[in-house]
Amino acid sequence: MQHCRTIGFDADDTLWHNENIFELVHARYRTLLAHYHDAATVDRTLFATEMKNLELYGYGVKGFTLSAIETAIALTDGKISAEEIRTLIDLGRDMLEHPVELLDGVADILATLADSHRLLVITKGDLRDQERKLAKSGLGVRFRHVEILSEKDESSYAAILRRHAIAPEEFLMVGNSLKSDILPVLALGGSGAHVPYHLTWGHERVEHVPEAPGRFIQLRTIRELPALLGA
Amino acid sequence: MQHCRTIGFDADDTLWHNENIFELVHARYRTLLAHYHDAATVDRTLFATEMKNLELYGYGVKGFTLSAIETAIALTDGKISAEEIRTLIDLGRDMLEHPVELLDGVADILATLADSHRLLVITKGDLRDQERKLAKSGLGVRFRHVEILSEKDESSYAAILRRHAIAPEEFLMVGNSLKSDILPVLALGGSGAHVPYHLTWGHERVEHVPEAPGRFIQLRTIRELPALLGA
Repeated sequence: MQHCRTIGFDADDTLWHNENIFELVHARYRTLLAHYHDAATVDRTLFATEMKNLELYGYGVKGFTLSAIETAIALTDGKISAEEIRTLIDLGRDMLEHPVELLDGVADILATLADSHRLLVITKGDLRDQERKLAKSGLGVRFRHVEILSEKDESSYAAILRRHAIAPEEFLMVGNSLKSDILPVLALGGSGAHVPYHLTWGHERVEHVPEAPGRFIQLRTIRELPALLGA
Repeated sequence: MQHCRTIGFDADDTLWHNENIFELVHARYRTLLAHYHDAATVDRTLFATEMKNLELYGYGVKGFTLSAIETAIALTDGKISAEEIRTLIDLGRDMLEHPVELLDGVADILATLADSHRLLVITKGDLRDQERKLAKSGLGVRFRHVEILSEKDESSYAAILRRHAIAPEEFLMVGNSLKSDILPVLALGGSGAHVPYHLTWGHERVEHVPEAPGRFIQLRTIRELPALLGA
């Protein structure tokens, strides 16, 4: 993929840890509701509420917190106390205030690639939260542009490529989600490098591995990226 | 201001009604808490919570809803019921699902100006909610670019002018907030046309009228805009 001059990076679970924070919050959420329902019921109902609300709320911590409150009220038939709901608001706040922990190797490989390639962040989620995480990460100087989207699909990637006059065949997207980071870019004629994170949110899971000979690569770690690009 | 070739439009309360929806929700919120506190205390406490949370949550309905729940729990010493909190979540959902009602004259003047000027939307708030409102408004085709920001200040306007290669002296911003739409643009050497809305959120209020001879104009209605631009 040495012909790729521009590289887009997903942020959550590609540059820094994110899903592990949600996992910790899920554990505390199950504990809070443990005297009403078993863990599997709590998980299943919360996920169903999130999916129901996704179109309206979009991605991000605030929508998650509202869905968690709604689910807790429903699962307890309204018996949950205001104090416990206050705990859920505090959990949401903790997530927003959580330190940004870079994934292993990220700072090094971005420093290497920034000399030879045009680097972009392309992430979805809450505008302010993603901007704050990028600022906390200290990685901002490595990126020519930062694109925060409400959804990552073919049309939103196409708009970015158009806006920055990037030819799809010279564009590589790097990320942990086949669904959001790889498949739409391959469909546009670009390339994708999948770097799995050890946790994947249910909404991002896909069953099949992309077929795009020469344009898709499965990496084990982001540290393999510079060699792939000849950098 | 006939030298202005590019016009930026604020969205909420400039292109379509917004603050009136918040006013209706405030009225229902006061009613919900009326047997605990008088209206002035409810308003003051909710506003204080919103200001405390603004840096963390940013602008928009989801952050407002979380602040409203937090305030209700505090003002009732935890006595508010889960059912009443569910009502607050529903209020937030109603706001997000509310139809978009254009302000008088907006559709006409945008149709007129789009022939002769480059038009932008420059708004702050929640990414998905603002995109949804623009789609519902039917105004999308009038605008060359849509910029949704987490904050409207000198640096964010400067970034937009740079990105689109707009000279400040050829840029006019139109909006209802002196603080967010006019003052930062004047500071950059651009022009501003203030079109007041009949309601102004406390956070957007400023005491002084800008001094920028020839670059600031106070309009009564957006219908005065084409004549000002010689269109």
